[in-house]
Amino acid sequence: MKSAIFTLAVILFIGGFACAQDKPVDYGNPTLNTIHSRKSVRNFTGEAVSKEDLQKIVEAGMCAPTAMNRQPWSFVVVTDRQILDKLLEAIPSKKMLAKAGAAIIICALPDKSSKEMSVIDCSLAGENMLLAIESLGLGGLWTAAYPDENMMSSLRTVLGIPDNVIPMNVMPIGHPDGSDKPKDKYKEENVHWDKW
Amino acid sequence: MKSAIFTLAVILFIGGFACAQDKPVDYGNPTLNTIHSRKSVRNFTGEAVSKEDLQKIVEAGMCAPTAMNRQPWSFVVVTDRQILDKLLEAIPSKKMLAKAGAAIIICALPDKSSKEMSVIDCSLAGENMLLAIESLGLGGLWTAAYPDENMMSSLRTVLGIPDNVIPMNVMPIGHPDGSDKPKDKYKEENVHWDKW
Repeated sequence: MKSAIFTLAVILFIGGFACAQDKPVDYGNPTLNTIHSRKSVRNFTGEAVSKEDLQKIVEAGMCAPTAMNRQPWSFVVVTDRQILDKLLEAIPSKKMLAKAGAAIIICALPDKSSKEMSVIDCSLAGENMLLAIESLGLGGLWTAAYPDENMMSSLRTVLGIPDNVIPMNVMPIGHPDGSDKPKDKYKEENVHWDKW
Repeated sequence: MKSAIFTLAVILFIGGFACAQDKPVDYGNPTLNTIHSRKSVRNFTGEAVSKEDLQKIVEAGMCAPTAMNRQPWSFVVVTDRQILDKLLEAIPSKKMLAKAGAAIIICALPDKSSKEMSVIDCSLAGENMLLAIESLGLGGLWTAAYPDENMMSSLRTVLGIPDNVIPMNVMPIGHPDGSDKPKDKYKEENVHWDKW
């Protein structure tokens, strides 16, 4: 009898655990669910990304707010395998490019705004793009170029980006192989109510 | 007969127009729809914002990626009307605070990362929060504090924020009165395929 109860308890425990693992948590609405399920995807299948999806991703970027509506941004979308390889050769640390289907380089235009505000506005755009990527079943991540002078210079050379433009990052995009998972980064001590 | 056809045409035209206005465009999935419908809301009803919603908003913020997973951020959530009024008194340009139900000040912690990366990471978090706000039927906007020394200093004084912390912005949050609409900022010339 005791062992039967124990076996039942084990089955219920494992069953409950499997269930919790299979069923994604509902954070209240589909947008919050996408925000919570977004992860930095570094492992891709090697499949191409459609031009239609890339277009949706840059359109999402341009929905972000910008200070004084200056829109101090531009986006280089790379799908050509030869250019992706040239980028990887120029910046070997961007190794996720090897199996990415595409990459987007977000470019800040300080002349249209200020250096600080163009960097912030392009970052706001970047998060829209990362969420768009997640919502389309694709994967990607922000890998920094700014403020590294060498990386920014390499991107300018390979892609023909003008000197007065800040190439902020390289966002490799592709079909996730499923191995990357979201991180839980919530920490209560980072929230201050009414006063620091 | 001619006038009947004309009347019919007018009715169909007006009817079609009203329809197009009422039915929101579908951008392909609920997250893309939220990204496209997000707007900077400056006009609030004056109603309070629930603590539950504010908690969801900061949780969404902490879902953003951070360089090297440093999480160089902290969030001051103000709901106390007296403190909101003190903020408005200290920085009169933040006039949307008058009818906002709450405000969040995103704080960058350069000591946990670098100045540049903490500013970028906090901006990524900020866009998550703006989309969370939109998805909850609330409204808000990013009003800059950084890099304005006077505004940052006022925020530090009113909220007790330490000197080594960068108060990035003030995000007034509230119930929209419905008058603010999203801007279409898509420009084809901002997209470069494969080369600048």
